[in-house]
Amino acid sequence: MEAYFDNSATTRVFDSVKDVVVKVMTEDYGNAAAKHLKGVEAENYIKEARSIIAKTLKVQDKEILFTSGGSESNNMALIGTAQAYKRAGNHIISSNIEHASVYRPLEYLEEQGFEVTYLPVDHQGHIDLKELEGALRPETILVSIMYVNNEIGSVEPIEEISKVIKKKNPDTLLHVDAIQAYGKLEIYPKRQGIDLMSVSGHKLHGPKGVGFLYIGEGVKIKPLIYGGGQQKGLRSGTENVPGVAGLGEAVKEVFTNHQEKLDNLYGLKDYFMTRIQELDGVWLNSQPGQESAPQIVSVSFEGIRSEVLLHALEEKGIYVSSGSACSINHPGVSGALKGIGVKKELLDGTLRFSFGLFNTREEIDYAMEALKEMLPILRRYKRG
Amino acid sequence: MEAYFDNSATTRVFDSVKDVVVKVMTEDYGNAAAKHLKGVEAENYIKEARSIIAKTLKVQDKEILFTSGGSESNNMALIGTAQAYKRAGNHIISSNIEHASVYRPLEYLEEQGFEVTYLPVDHQGHIDLKELEGALRPETILVSIMYVNNEIGSVEPIEEISKVIKKKNPDTLLHVDAIQAYGKLEIYPKRQGIDLMSVSGHKLHGPKGVGFLYIGEGVKIKPLIYGGGQQKGLRSGTENVPGVAGLGEAVKEVFTNHQEKLDNLYGLKDYFMTRIQELDGVWLNSQPGQESAPQIVSVSFEGIRSEVLLHALEEKGIYVSSGSACSINHPGVSGALKGIGVKKELLDGTLRFSFGLFNTREEIDYAMEALKEMLPILRRYKRG
Repeated sequence: MEAYFDNSATTRVFDSVKDVVVKVMTEDYGNAAAKHLKGVEAENYIKEARSIIAKTLKVQDKEILFTSGGSESNNMALIGTAQAYKRAGNHIISSNIEHASVYRPLEYLEEQGFEVTYLPVDHQGHIDLKELEGALRPETILVSIMYVNNEIGSVEPIEEISKVIKKKNPDTLLHVDAIQAYGKLEIYPKRQGIDLMSVSGHKLHGPKGVGFLYIGEGVKIKPLIYGGGQQKGLRSGTENVPGVAGLGEAVKEVFTNHQEKLDNLYGLKDYFMTRIQELDGVWLNSQPGQESAPQIVSVSFEGIRSEVLLHALEEKGIYVSSGSACSINHPGVSGALKGIGVKKELLDGTLRFSFGLFNTREEIDYAMEALKEMLPILRRYKRG
Repeated sequence: MEAYFDNSATTRVFDSVKDVVVKVMTEDYGNAAAKHLKGVEAENYIKEARSIIAKTLKVQDKEILFTSGGSESNNMALIGTAQAYKRAGNHIISSNIEHASVYRPLEYLEEQGFEVTYLPVDHQGHIDLKELEGALRPETILVSIMYVNNEIGSVEPIEEISKVIKKKNPDTLLHVDAIQAYGKLEIYPKRQGIDLMSVSGHKLHGPKGVGFLYIGEGVKIKPLIYGGGQQKGLRSGTENVPGVAGLGEAVKEVFTNHQEKLDNLYGLKDYFMTRIQELDGVWLNSQPGQESAPQIVSVSFEGIRSEVLLHALEEKGIYVSSGSACSINHPGVSGALKGIGVKKELLDGTLRFSFGLFNTREEIDYAMEALKEMLPILRRYKRG
């Protein structure tokens, strides 16, 4: 048996996604900028994908910009708006549990003369709205807060965050890293007061190398990549038509019987959380039910190094992550785990189990049997 | 019959490329940064592709950086080195027939305080080496010259260009946009004195949404995209493993019996150039044989608007390009055609025929029959 529980790192594509990628690569392979029929066909795939996505968010088609993935979306949102609004101010607010594709561009902007305030989080991973309010200044041009934390699955109260921002300073933009949230929560940028939002395709059974950035009408932004003027000049380069079409197809699949799929994911998570508490010396760093995202459970194992357990599980075909797999230079110890106050001796013994639409309860049972068998052995080994 | 002669806009992927993309998307779908087996498998695809490409160029594996395509490669080469070397100088040299993904980032750099000299070209599309020498200054940090022009197929003497640069100023870097050249010409960056070189996957029967930038050892460059630290921190973001593996496979295919494939392409081009001269009122803007690239022929048709002819051909399943399809906001009239002095009345009647490895002489014969039939009718129509 195999149990792939690393879906927040990346997912297997839907078969229908594979099919459309193949069709576009081998039959409808035109350049979307070409003036002939093959170009028009290619462009139609892009229009269709844009329309599918826009409908799920209740936004306009033209507010969806395709990128090469979540990291590019985050970089463009931060660097692109900072460049566009630098005359309005040089202050940005974020949190101290953001993904590297947010905090690294922020570090770059600090080098360029911007000032960034990093808000701390409580033990559930939430920023404090009063602190946010206190941090806002007249020269704050942008607030960037992730929707769902990639390591622990905590959900920030985005709508309330936006209200605090807009009440004090209506011109300050809110960017949301929704890479772990889109398809897992109900997100409506207009209603929730989101100005920019980053999404990645391969986290939701779509292709790698493609994502999008929602850019609300009226938001000014500078490109990261200049050239042939594709996508109204905001993101040049021959469109990745198979990738975009595949992303559109993945979104269509995810949002078909969406509530049923979500109920199923929450069911898996709760089942997993219940069953894992049968084990000794296990601490949960994620909230149950709707209090956190449906797909991410962070678990600390007393007296075991996460990497040892990760490889022991791997030998049984069970794939999980230690910390966030999104960063190869991850400094060993997680930002989010520290941020929520996980005890020092547990930091190094924490694994992330993340579920996708292909997972089953049988796989969870299989993983539980494996853990029951290996935990006592590994603990003895460590002591010995 | 169908005749796709727009291969410089984009190509159909090899079947073997499709197969590897499918395998990686559906079976070996891990995140290359994951620590478990599925991560290692994914990373191996990337290592393998890097090694295949490095061998064709006789460079080190670590000098190959994967990007989302040619436009990102060009942007990173220009903006990334300008940022890294700005203390050494603020002057850049390029030509006036570069692709938009070179001249648009250069315009951006001009806004940032850099000064750019654009060298003119002669009627064959070549810059003048004496003019280049004269333009070089102590503060020239970078020269960016395309290898093969995308509209007319002219080949710049890159090795001589590098010698002129390095003789006068050994520290000035040479970036080469090789998006239409890689796989079509013998390119060895070390021998030819190339410091950075941009390549796109989908121009050589590989996937869209992936490309690479050769960055010679010792060249300093700043990232465009910051984040998880993938590719030694130079290009963050979950690696597009299917795309990269597909690119590696495409390169392997192109470079298998490479000389035979090139001879075949040159044969097609010469056959096309011979046959098209059977027609009246036709002017060739590309050089025959080895004097220009094997895959691009620019043809001006007297008394006909290119767009009308393009759509007439399209109705017969013959796909060509007017100007460059790489730019959707192309200002109607081509930079390269103007640059080489194409007569004003012909500028608007010019088509690009670009060949790929799937084209045949039968397709050329088919296109010739179509042109013979439609040219007199379209010309009469225009006069009438």
